[in-house]
Amino acid sequence: MRNFEFYNPVNIVFGQGQIKKLNKLVPANTKIMLAYGGGSIFKNGVYEQVKSALTGYDILEFGGIEPNPHYETLMKAAEIVKNEKIGFILAVGGGSVLDGVKFIAAAALWEEGDPWMFLVDRSIVVTKAVPLGSVLTLPATGSEMNSTAVVTRVSTQEKFAFASYAVMPKFSILDPTVVFSLPEKQVANGVVDAFVHVIEQYLTYPVNSPIQDRFAESILVTLAEEGPKVLANLADYDAAANFMWAATMALNGLIGTGVPQDWATHQIGHELTAFHNIDHARTLAIVLPGIMKVKRENKREKLLQYGERVWGITAGTEDTRIDATIEKTVAFFESFGIPTKLSAYNIGADFIPVVCNRFAERGTKGIGERGDLTVEQIGEVLTLQL
Amino acid sequence: MRNFEFYNPVNIVFGQGQIKKLNKLVPANTKIMLAYGGGSIFKNGVYEQVKSALTGYDILEFGGIEPNPHYETLMKAAEIVKNEKIGFILAVGGGSVLDGVKFIAAAALWEEGDPWMFLVDRSIVVTKAVPLGSVLTLPATGSEMNSTAVVTRVSTQEKFAFASYAVMPKFSILDPTVVFSLPEKQVANGVVDAFVHVIEQYLTYPVNSPIQDRFAESILVTLAEEGPKVLANLADYDAAANFMWAATMALNGLIGTGVPQDWATHQIGHELTAFHNIDHARTLAIVLPGIMKVKRENKREKLLQYGERVWGITAGTEDTRIDATIEKTVAFFESFGIPTKLSAYNIGADFIPVVCNRFAERGTKGIGERGDLTVEQIGEVLTLQL
Repeated sequence: MRNFEFYNPVNIVFGQGQIKKLNKLVPANTKIMLAYGGGSIFKNGVYEQVKSALTGYDILEFGGIEPNPHYETLMKAAEIVKNEKIGFILAVGGGSVLDGVKFIAAAALWEEGDPWMFLVDRSIVVTKAVPLGSVLTLPATGSEMNSTAVVTRVSTQEKFAFASYAVMPKFSILDPTVVFSLPEKQVANGVVDAFVHVIEQYLTYPVNSPIQDRFAESILVTLAEEGPKVLANLADYDAAANFMWAATMALNGLIGTGVPQDWATHQIGHELTAFHNIDHARTLAIVLPGIMKVKRENKREKLLQYGERVWGITAGTEDTRIDATIEKTVAFFESFGIPTKLSAYNIGADFIPVVCNRFAERGTKGIGERGDLTVEQIGEVLTLQL
Repeated sequence: MRNFEFYNPVNIVFGQGQIKKLNKLVPANTKIMLAYGGGSIFKNGVYEQVKSALTGYDILEFGGIEPNPHYETLMKAAEIVKNEKIGFILAVGGGSVLDGVKFIAAAALWEEGDPWMFLVDRSIVVTKAVPLGSVLTLPATGSEMNSTAVVTRVSTQEKFAFASYAVMPKFSILDPTVVFSLPEKQVANGVVDAFVHVIEQYLTYPVNSPIQDRFAESILVTLAEEGPKVLANLADYDAAANFMWAATMALNGLIGTGVPQDWATHQIGHELTAFHNIDHARTLAIVLPGIMKVKRENKREKLLQYGERVWGITAGTEDTRIDATIEKTVAFFESFGIPTKLSAYNIGADFIPVVCNRFAERGTKGIGERGDLTVEQIGEVLTLQL
């Protein structure tokens, strides 16, 4: 195990009926921004529960935060936070609303020029942000219990992330009943998103970290078991709850302590979203199988362990087992109606040099857990997934 | 899964060489109490590392905190904290020093009479404490990442716990190299202590909580695998690190979220320590097998799951498997040189009514996850372990 620091002070309030605790969690003596997305909170009853819990609060609403939230929209919100002297931002939504609010909270107090800079330059540390909390409406990204946010700039077709302890939610309310009214497509995306978050922190190379490995496998097995149950019956409370808690644990920092991490799938996937607006989870389902194939030797030991412990694949030679493991992963994604080939999204070979040029222009030498997935290999990954 | 809240803001700084970060973690503008136990920190080099990292700090030392820390000793420290206007307490030691410091930190700011009251009366909520941090020297109790402390009053032979967010360490430094110089007995106790902490939160009845169950099993399997490696070679860094992280994860609140918990083994064990001064972990190794036998029907489903997933016991009827599972648990404890029978500690049947009277005097109706382990059954548990 490598040296690490782990700090996660998010107060998780989990279960049905918990939204009414908002008045104990949101500060009463300041102006609140209630931020949300496309308006699903008006259909699933969450908006009414939130407003009812916050009766008497001074609330300003900001809606319309997009999936893959747009820098352009968020900057408008940050301006309002500044001008209206907002003291607390409540994100009510999924990962995009949460990520958007993290950026708004940091951008509103940023005094050194265009906040875009702390997205582009990972060496810049954000230390100040308006305090925020969340009511999660879509299990998927883990943003409710971590320090990270991903933001898209429409004008330049770029998607970048930043991380800061300053934007960790003070609290997150996780009520599994929000799953009952989700579109099936969003549940499928959520399961795959959480699954690949775990894979990015697990499917690398062994460093003798049995707790982290087994926790990662625990989440993967749970997503593999509970995901289909949720889709079979959206009103299955236990399945929804287990899916929700698994998605949070998938990316709250815990399983990534002291181990190498990959994230190449995410980096390449971000380009698919930036250029073609493909759902984040779907980009991961496309790219991951290609990474597994191209980095098969790098990841050999962990591919075998993953195949055995998550999918029960123990028969045959090592190479047969690795083949079966990759096939099983693909079949799992596709069982949720998520295609893993670019052709299914009407993307052809002409797009591959566009992505490679993006990485080349940024001076990318190599990405992934060993920093050795080259620009050429990024092309190979995408070619395998045509 | 049941509703729950989870909040754990302890900053974990893990790995070799991390003690030197103390000067970034301990506030410089206040007077520090450096609290420790019997003096092992002078032999293992930790004291020198701590003092060296805190050069220039205004430090007052308080040593001599006992195993199963004594209320009487801790009250003296609390008096010093008050009189000397200590602003931060650094606990350098194992679970007893940490628990002791938590009590000192709360007692020093307690204004409503004898601090003993918040140990006896669990309805009292401690909301103020002097801030504290820790350098852990013995993996075992999990106290470095939780809100709980156990204190013993020598004069009345009583042992009680309290819990408060106010006493959670601001940080805990976990350097696995401290294990290299531990007495084997303390390592053995630490493995068993951590193991039983997990069991208390896991071996109850199913509530459809696969993440919590699998995380618990992950810790149990890791302790079963790494514990013997540590004892075989105290200088095995990876084994020490995995043992240390497992012990912390065993009792930081995570695996206990949303599930029933038992703690009868601890409650009964505390009486063995209070009367006979038996090491805490050893009392757990004595009591747990008795609880498994007496509450075999209550715990049937989880005993079968535990046997299969932790010990690989799958052959035979349910009852055969449960028998084998209990035997395997006993053999595991005894493999560390920890006897599980009272006779090995020179305790006879005459002691059993003493313990039962204790519970009866407190008006105990029943303890354990269903509140149905009666005073009579506490006697049965101990009789089985004579």
